[in-house]
Amino acid sequence: MVIFRRLLGEVLRSQRMRQGRTLRQVSAEARVSLGYISEIERGQKEASSELLASICAALDVPLSEILSEVSDAVALEEAALAMQLELETTSLQRSLRGPASGPRPGDVVASAA
Amino acid sequence: MVIFRRLLGEVLRSQRMRQGRTLRQVSAEARVSLGYISEIERGQKEASSELLASICAALDVPLSEILSEVSDAVALEEAALAMQLELETTSLQRSLRGPASGPRPGDVVASAA
Repeated sequence: MVIFRRLLGEVLRSQRMRQGRTLRQVSAEARVSLGYISEIERGQKEASSELLASICAALDVPLSEILSEVSDAVALEEAALAMQLELETTSLQRSLRGPASGPRPGDVVASAA
Repeated sequence: MVIFRRLLGEVLRSQRMRQGRTLRQVSAEARVSLGYISEIERGQKEASSELLASICAALDVPLSEILSEVSDAVALEEAALAMQLELETTSLQRSLRGPASGPRPGDVVASAA
């Protein structure tokens, strides 16, 4: 399950770091407590929509841009999860088939000649 | 101020409508109470990240796609707000300049000939 607040926190943190600003500066400008904004960046608290708007304003980045970055990060995680699921399914199918059910990639197959 | 939960609610609702599904169906599949999901669609309640993931799974739409649609809707509102602000600033500047401060668009200017 891809958790929105975790990736939102990562995007907000990387935006702030790119601007070379401290948590304290953004917290003062957004009028959000230091502890709260730090929990949001670490994905431990959900940000209300009003708070999210304040943080975006303090970072001087449009909310649409933040959401677009989060959407890209979520898409990457979704792809990684889908790939992992496929690998697990393939491995499960192989173990269900058992060891004597034919050649598998990497097996040496005897030539018929 | 653009409010994330309002546009998220609109996107979730329009996705559900496109699929021709009722609130009741999605609520049962996502294991979210009917009242809660209805408030989320109307932008009256913030959805937790876990709930958002459940609703996306029930709608069979990746979270990344929902967020990308929300980002587009937010960008449209941001552009509309910026345009409105510009119009208000221009109108304020005009009224500060006063009525005798030269021709304005639409004024008939006497020819010098």
